[in-house]
Amino acid sequence: LGIGAHPSYPDLAGFGRRALAASPDEVRADVLYQIGALAAFCRARGVALRHVKPHGALYNEAQRDASTADAVCRAVRAFDPELWLLTIPGHALERAAHACGLRVAREGFADRGRRPDGTLVPRGEPGALLTRPEEAAAQALALARSGGFDSICVHSDTPGAAAILRAVREALEAGGVPVRPFGSQP
Amino acid sequence: LGIGAHPSYPDLAGFGRRALAASPDEVRADVLYQIGALAAFCRARGVALRHVKPHGALYNEAQRDASTADAVCRAVRAFDPELWLLTIPGHALERAAHACGLRVAREGFADRGRRPDGTLVPRGEPGALLTRPEEAAAQALALARSGGFDSICVHSDTPGAAAILRAVREALEAGGVPVRPFGSQP
Amino acid sequence: LGIGAHPSYPDLAGFGRRALAASPDEVRADVLYQIGALAAFCRARGVALRHVKPHGALYNEAQRDASTADAVCRAVRAFDPELWLLTIPGHALERAAHACGLRVAREGFADRGRRPDGTLVPRGEPGALLTRPEEAAAQALALARSGGFDSICVHSDTPGAAAILRAVREALEAGGVPVRPFGSQP
Amino acid sequence: LGIGAHPSYPDLAGFGRRALAASPDEVRADVLYQIGALAAFCRARGVALRHVKPHGALYNEAQRDASTADAVCRAVRAFDPELWLLTIPGHALERAAHACGLRVAREGFADRGRRPDGTLVPRGEPGALLTRPEEAAAQALALARSGGFDSICVHSDTPGAAAILRAVREALEAGGVPVRPFGSQP
Repeated sequence: LGIGAHPSYPDLAGFGRRALAASPDEVRADVLYQIGALAAFCRARGVALRHVKPHGALYNEAQRDASTADAVCRAVRAFDPELWLLTIPGHALERAAHACGLRVAREGFADRGRRPDGTLVPRGEPGALLTRPEEAAAQALALARSGGFDSICVHSDTPGAAAILRAVREALEAGGVPVRPFGSQP
Repeated sequence: LGIGAHPSYPDLAGFGRRALAASPDEVRADVLYQIGALAAFCRARGVALRHVKPHGALYNEAQRDASTADAVCRAVRAFDPELWLLTIPGHALERAAHACGLRVAREGFADRGRRPDGTLVPRGEPGALLTRPEEAAAQALALARSGGFDSICVHSDTPGAAAILRAVREALEAGGVPVRPFGSQP
Repeated sequence: LGIGAHPSYPDLAGFGRRALAASPDEVRADVLYQIGALAAFCRARGVALRHVKPHGALYNEAQRDASTADAVCRAVRAFDPELWLLTIPGHALERAAHACGLRVAREGFADRGRRPDGTLVPRGEPGALLTRPEEAAAQALALARSGGFDSICVHSDTPGAAAILRAVREALEAGGVPVRPFGSQP
Repeated sequence: LGIGAHPSYPDLAGFGRRALAASPDEVRADVLYQIGALAAFCRARGVALRHVKPHGALYNEAQRDASTADAVCRAVRAFDPELWLLTIPGHALERAAHACGLRVAREGFADRGRRPDGTLVPRGEPGALLTRPEEAAAQALALARSGGFDSICVHSDTPGAAAILRAVREALEAGGVPVRPFGSQP
């Protein structure tokens, strides 16, 4: 287990899933604020905060917009340059993280359909979600074996998420892929 | 200058000035959350967070209710046992802070009228606010010389606050009372 | 079916279940605001708003505090003097509603344990909730037949609420008690 | 005097001045909610709600995006088809209002610099704000005499707004342009 902050735009009514035209300074402040708040609970419990992954629309904007990506990464680095940043590989957020000198964990999705070119089938289109556990598990193992991913995401609100998680973990372990937090020793 | 957190009940519409029947666990969580959020900005700037003083209704409730006072102090200690806690002397919050082993700074008010027994004239009654700078300055000096206070408060929303502050500082310095953050060396 | 507003203190984080030390003017404004917002959606749908029942801590405070009760009733009357007000009989809110000239619907609880004197067993004590459908149904029928109640509440967050509701309705109809909105013709 | 609702995106932290990627249904609901809440206070005071003008980023989005404009207009019409809608002429919101059958009041700005083609100098650029009262007053009179505008806006947060307002009113009256609410009789 590794604990991570999942900061979002300040959009409670929309669960952070709607893009907000916030300036880079506003994004940096919102991310810093949310990391700090969670880190206080970690500190009170004596556990470490290990990583940051932007949530919802902020994650999407940070993949496509360089100034948003940079604002997120500057917030993470200002709080703790040892934190890992999760990102989809090949987009603006990964580039910004490398430019900031952050440790990067590349994320793949067990429960999202992929197009032949590796991009995700957009939500709302047929095949966007993989809800059959064996299908998600097979995709997770393929992502892990490809060498291109350090983290496999299963969304907690995908129908049947608990069964998918169990199948993914079993498939990874059966396939010889150890499951552990980023940066921990085998 | 010393930077402090000023955590309150989650009552944005009432500016934290209305008591909320929150449980001790809720108070502890709200205080921890707010200290953590501010501390993240301090960390990003490379400056220290020095003290905590509950705001508005939370300050009042923590003076009179032992379980609220205890919840505030446990949050402060869990975040950083070296932080100073500001409190009005002689009430529940001071007792809880000593019981928690926190450093205590006793607060007096330059701009609030006092009764003969030392308690404040309630807001809304005649004499509750001292708005003449020389009057506030004289009271500040008397409080400082009494030996019973470590911190003198001037409310930023008292009419003429800037002039009062200037008069208070001049009176303290002219009276031989050094002005510096809690716990700093002379 | 009758549509009613369920206004509360502005305490999103606590789901309106924590008392807030709001002034009567603040309570009146919050209730008016929330009734107005819901009424706009009724108007857009072409349906009538029929009643108001304060939610959570505001309901409790309005039962015991005359000035809160009066503030709630003045808000309801100012918006529409034809609206029904729901209240537990025998407390401050019923008295305020009569003083304001509002139509009053007296509420009983199918799913809450009652003491011999008719008051509710407080939440958190044994017997506070009646979760067996037949038990709740029997209590609902007894309340309805007593002639002291116009409305029977089943809390949507009582475990098994849907089964309780079904049992209550069947018991009322089998017992010859018609189920319909306040003030509608038989 | 005429009272109007000024609904915005639910962005308290940004004072409604940041665009939010809300769906048309979300925009319609937010606008309806805010009109309803204000209308409740009008009703309690016995005064009429006369018009609606979207605030900040929602106004800007409704000028350029047809589906946002349509959502705003459907909310206004659903609440009360007699309400006036304020809009900058020549953009999506005016077209949507006409399509919805709403009464339209065309708005010009006394205190904003205009380019030769009639569009506003963007905030942040030189000449965006007219802060000299006589300059704003002259522009207001020119706008009113052009026949293209029914309403002249002076922003309450433009420096010197009160003096500008006074100058604008005097110039309009001296110029023979009566100042009164939309749709009222001379």
